[in-house]
Amino acid sequence: MIYLDNAATTLRKPPQVGQAMLDALQTLGNSSRGTHAGALDAAHTIYGARVKLAQFFHCARPDHVVFTSNITESLNIALCGLLRPGDHALSTDLEHNSVLRPLYRLSAERGVAVDFVPADRQGCIDYDDFERLMRPNTKLVVCTHASNLTGNLVDINRISAIAHAHGALLVLDAAQTAGTRDVDMEALGVDVLCFTGHKGLMGPQGTGGMCIREGVEIAPFKVGGTGVQTYSVTQPEQYPTRLEAGTLNGHGIAGLSAAIDYLNEIGAEAVEARELALTRRFYEAVRMIPGITVYGDFSGAHAGIVALNIRDCDSGEISDALSEDYGIATRPGAHCAPRLHEALGTKAQGAVRFSFSWFTTEAEVDAAADALRELAQA
Amino acid sequence: MIYLDNAATTLRKPPQVGQAMLDALQTLGNSSRGTHAGALDAAHTIYGARVKLAQFFHCARPDHVVFTSNITESLNIALCGLLRPGDHALSTDLEHNSVLRPLYRLSAERGVAVDFVPADRQGCIDYDDFERLMRPNTKLVVCTHASNLTGNLVDINRISAIAHAHGALLVLDAAQTAGTRDVDMEALGVDVLCFTGHKGLMGPQGTGGMCIREGVEIAPFKVGGTGVQTYSVTQPEQYPTRLEAGTLNGHGIAGLSAAIDYLNEIGAEAVEARELALTRRFYEAVRMIPGITVYGDFSGAHAGIVALNIRDCDSGEISDALSEDYGIATRPGAHCAPRLHEALGTKAQGAVRFSFSWFTTEAEVDAAADALRELAQA
Repeated sequence: MIYLDNAATTLRKPPQVGQAMLDALQTLGNSSRGTHAGALDAAHTIYGARVKLAQFFHCARPDHVVFTSNITESLNIALCGLLRPGDHALSTDLEHNSVLRPLYRLSAERGVAVDFVPADRQGCIDYDDFERLMRPNTKLVVCTHASNLTGNLVDINRISAIAHAHGALLVLDAAQTAGTRDVDMEALGVDVLCFTGHKGLMGPQGTGGMCIREGVEIAPFKVGGTGVQTYSVTQPEQYPTRLEAGTLNGHGIAGLSAAIDYLNEIGAEAVEARELALTRRFYEAVRMIPGITVYGDFSGAHAGIVALNIRDCDSGEISDALSEDYGIATRPGAHCAPRLHEALGTKAQGAVRFSFSWFTTEAEVDAAADALRELAQA
Repeated sequence: MIYLDNAATTLRKPPQVGQAMLDALQTLGNSSRGTHAGALDAAHTIYGARVKLAQFFHCARPDHVVFTSNITESLNIALCGLLRPGDHALSTDLEHNSVLRPLYRLSAERGVAVDFVPADRQGCIDYDDFERLMRPNTKLVVCTHASNLTGNLVDINRISAIAHAHGALLVLDAAQTAGTRDVDMEALGVDVLCFTGHKGLMGPQGTGGMCIREGVEIAPFKVGGTGVQTYSVTQPEQYPTRLEAGTLNGHGIAGLSAAIDYLNEIGAEAVEARELALTRRFYEAVRMIPGITVYGDFSGAHAGIVALNIRDCDSGEISDALSEDYGIATRPGAHCAPRLHEALGTKAQGAVRFSFSWFTTEAEVDAAADALRELAQA
């Protein structure tokens, strides 16, 4: 299988990830629950992962790195824990349902007002719209670092400057960029960084988290046992415990920690350069094929994603043909990005998404382009 | 290390658990996101695990088996998704903070009334109290199947009969019993069964879930991408998608699935008999040691847990001595069970908890009893 569905989950992981999980499975007790060797080993593994992730994302405090089961949980925690009745939130048409559905629910159930910066037919946004849509009660701006459909990158510096000028927070959905480029929350002006472990970070599923700037107060989402402050009727106040209830995924976090080691060895610049080169190679090979429409803006830097259609063919049929006849794994349909498909005019057709990883080869990219050339001629 | 902290997490897992996770790490794409081999492999693995768990717990519908990251999340989902303003909930003093803190929060923030059936100084409850405390607006009874502190088992049949006679639901916290005895939700009259993967089920951390009886409607807790019904602004209605947002822990679920296979080979009765025998052996060896107080009721069946103290010694000091001088891992302190420690009169002292698993040996139990004998003489 030529696996080009890395925006959904990376299939090929660094070899040390599995080994770290196996080792953890044989040694980890329950973190924060006792002081015997097993419990301390778990606490050490998990705290070590917080330190690594804090360095990786330039979060000032390791204890402000909170673990979750995936980025959807991170975004639910951030949005439900920050937005109160009467608040306004600003987002964009580029967002994934992991941002949209929490916002829709907060709007329907909690009286939070929400606006969306529109996208054009190339999936681009006008940054002046952020300025235009800010209100005095805008509590936060939440947006993706790169569209999971077109791969268009978003200028987070520009948005955070506008948000902060209006006293609002910036919550970043880094699902498509964490691990595939340098995501420096300090330099980008991010107040809450949400990440997932199983995509660009190349860790196991069941891992994710958030990095919280000092001074940002997020109310607990789920509450329960913490192994500390047992007699408090409320969740403990301090991070990360405030947002972590119940036993953490120590085995998965051990794997994620090993993946971060691997990424640190390569360096973010090398990963970014490689994915951009693969993306450009694919884009240049397919964009002039008659009948193919590529979505998105490829004029500058870009995440490792290319979405396209062949004439008016159903995206599911093209993706199935790629899978069955060529052994190429892609993702058709709506990609949990309903507003962006509407903006692109692809709601009915969907689109076929190709997404690359550090482990993707030039030969795989070329094979995919060749397959598309054949399918477009059929 | 002699690991006797299995009530916190089982440290020794069946060998196929790690292998299943390694295999999954090399083959699983993202379930429900595409139709290529990787995505289908993930969907197949996860659905297969639902089928196994439905059989294991006697849940009528595999699609009513919902995966979560741990039982704390399961209990948050069940309680927050069922209780509305004006409802009454009934629980017990035996509960873990994973039940108590969600209830306290619903009481403080959502106007839910809550009562607790009291425990006596042996951690026993009077079942007539359930009848006494039911109200016309009692929406549910939530209780543990076995205390995580004393190991006392709770007569769930009796409680569910009272709950159902009053039109209330029964939500079961099976943290300490799932995998260590037959938990048949149909026979027990359970409406929502909450379980965790990393304790008696001997799966990896980061896994857990709930089994929901047909007709029980639980509102979503977190919302987001589901890979289906992208254009719906709300979370899809059907289980399990209604309660699962974002990428599932496919790698962990593969491990849990292998653990269930292992448990099915042994049989629930054999596990239960072995843990009860180990527990009785330990209890009989320590209960007459001068200076030792054992908590709980050992007159009948019992979970694989024994909690005790030596005179008025701080439980943390005894647990540390066991760990440092004898290499025996136990859990001191409050065990996230604040109301029960208050009932036992051990709030200040805590207690030293010994908990066993299928893999615990008689020699380990005897070594722990011998160590206690020495410590009690010191």
